Amino acid sequence: MRTKIDGELSLLERIRRRAKSTGTGLRLGIGDDCALLRLHPAEELAVTTDLSIAGRHFRLNWHPSESVGHRTLARGLSDLAAMGARPVAAFLSLGLPRELTIAHPRRKSRPQSPWIEGFLNGFLTLADLHNAPLAGGDLAESPVAVADIVLAGAVPRGRALLRSGARPGDLLYVTGKLGGASAGLQGLAKLMGGRGASRGRIPPGLQDSLAPHLYPQPRIVQGIYLQKRQLANAAIDLSDGLSTDLSHICAESGVFAEIDAAAIPIHPDATLDQALHGGEDYELLFSASPSARVPRAIAGVPITRIGRVLRTGRKGPSVTLITSRGSQPLDPAGWQHFS
Amino acid sequence: MRTKIDGELSLLERIRRRAKSTGTGLRLGIGDDCALLRLHPAEELAVTTDLSIAGRHFRLNWHPSESVGHRTLARGLSDLAAMGARPVAAFLSLGLPRELTIAHPRRKSRPQSPWIEGFLNGFLTLADLHNAPLAGGDLAESPVAVADIVLAGAVPRGRALLRSGARPGDLLYVTGKLGGASAGLQGLAKLMGGRGASRGRIPPGLQDSLAPHLYPQPRIVQGIYLQKRQLANAAIDLSDGLSTDLSHICAESGVFAEIDAAAIPIHPDATLDQALHGGEDYELLFSASPSARVPRAIAGVPITRIGRVLRTGRKGPSVTLITSRGSQPLDPAGWQHFS
Repeated sequence: MRTKIDGELSLLERIRRRAKSTGTGLRLGIGDDCALLRLHPAEELAVTTDLSIAGRHFRLNWHPSESVGHRTLARGLSDLAAMGARPVAAFLSLGLPRELTIAHPRRKSRPQSPWIEGFLNGFLTLADLHNAPLAGGDLAESPVAVADIVLAGAVPRGRALLRSGARPGDLLYVTGKLGGASAGLQGLAKLMGGRGASRGRIPPGLQDSLAPHLYPQPRIVQGIYLQKRQLANAAIDLSDGLSTDLSHICAESGVFAEIDAAAIPIHPDATLDQALHGGEDYELLFSASPSARVPRAIAGVPITRIGRVLRTGRKGPSVTLITSRGSQPLDPAGWQHFS
Repeated sequence: MRTKIDGELSLLERIRRRAKSTGTGLRLGIGDDCALLRLHPAEELAVTTDLSIAGRHFRLNWHPSESVGHRTLARGLSDLAAMGARPVAAFLSLGLPRELTIAHPRRKSRPQSPWIEGFLNGFLTLADLHNAPLAGGDLAESPVAVADIVLAGAVPRGRALLRSGARPGDLLYVTGKLGGASAGLQGLAKLMGGRGASRGRIPPGLQDSLAPHLYPQPRIVQGIYLQKRQLANAAIDLSDGLSTDLSHICAESGVFAEIDAAAIPIHPDATLDQALHGGEDYELLFSASPSARVPRAIAGVPITRIGRVLRTGRKGPSVTLITSRGSQPLDPAGWQHFS
């Protein structure tokens, strides 16, 4: 991370002071050319990176800055959760228009704190919760706000949960409820499109229904639980939507799958369609042997059986949805970049 | 990394096929929620991230796409070099306007290959040279081109070259020649500002003089050499310029330094000012004990003694420049973000 060397308490220096400088496995944090991570000899390192861009992954005039910071980190943590890895360190590259780094100039009597302060509040609060110290990153001026998040996590050698491990006969499970993030986004769009909505301000009465979108909870604890007990044969996090992410497991494992519409744990605010294709719920989808003792809940988060893995070899779509009216192919319809 | 699942050979699939899927330490590359890295038990991991933004770190109408890809990776590799680490894996997050991902539509008779192909050529050629397999990343549409590079490297535990290790009495050295990148950028600006310059095309006669800017060579081999033989007490790469980067070493080590203007290895195309403040040379600056046997060259790259580390405690600037007309403070005047 580039550091300022003049006398002022620069933005980077402020970040450096607020970031936890050490953690389990982090030996050297912000302030040198690289951070240094040290693992237990029996561990390997899981690394993931996710790019968030204003206007595409969030909207500056819709999302509170705390939510943007939270969501940026949650995307990366969720990838670690899907591998069953414990967080070791986070790295954040921020490209920001200058106006987002300074106090809002319009109201001198009651100056608003800079956008980046709210972003860091959201980011670091979630980072502390999951013991993911901010170990480095980069900061640059940019005409459009971009945030790239890197997470490094540790997992016992050979024990990471992969997309490619699903076997015919496995049962399929998800954590939590699905579709809430999509329903929350719809609610946010309605709120911000309506009258009286002020930039990034969420009325207290709507906080709960928008929370699955604004503040998704990565399932780190649940991923580590599955990994430690070797309960799951394959896992992925639901970032693009159940239909798309399940098709990834099928493609990487060389299998087909079918899911029961009636079994899907739909969020009370959501529709079946949102639960199937909505994306950004950041719940875990995993396959487990029929003999595995999968609990009904892990750390308070319900686990629901939604379908099964089938033998490959036949023609047709990789995922089938079973409803009361029969079977139908479930085409992936989640978020796609450059599609 | 998000993957496409439809039948087409998508952009991500093309990247995945071109990227080396394995390397020393890389156990699982592109295609799952995380990449997996495995180190020798006696090693620790060095991680760095650098954000490059169009209009700030490069210009789409000045720099050939190969150069943008090369420079993106070189920035990260250079941070590993400064720690004495060997590359294990690279991660690339790209935010690109759609037009940069498709063949240039204007000339149908002789379609130009997409900008991203040239970018990847430059990136992967340098990656292969330094055994830094592309292990993951992210790809999204963005109104402005941004590239965030993450490098993970391995270094024996406790042996990384830090900025904070300089001791009074140490001698200061640099690799290679300084100022060439700054002179090259000046040449590029002149070329692109003049008549007859076509977007991103460099006339063959100018390739050599622009190379230090367009294709800087990260000093991985030299950094590992210094680390293995424990020759350097402190090191940094010259990304922001000698004046700024030396002040970082002074600040982190709690020392002062003085350098001899006459000793600085100035690139033949450059001025003293460019050598002192130019930045982006990506040479290494290091301090070594007077008793250390520092060679005159490492793998063909000259090593030049340029000054010494002084005891702290007196007032005044942290870096002094000694010229034939006496001593003068050398204020950091390199690149600063949000300054």
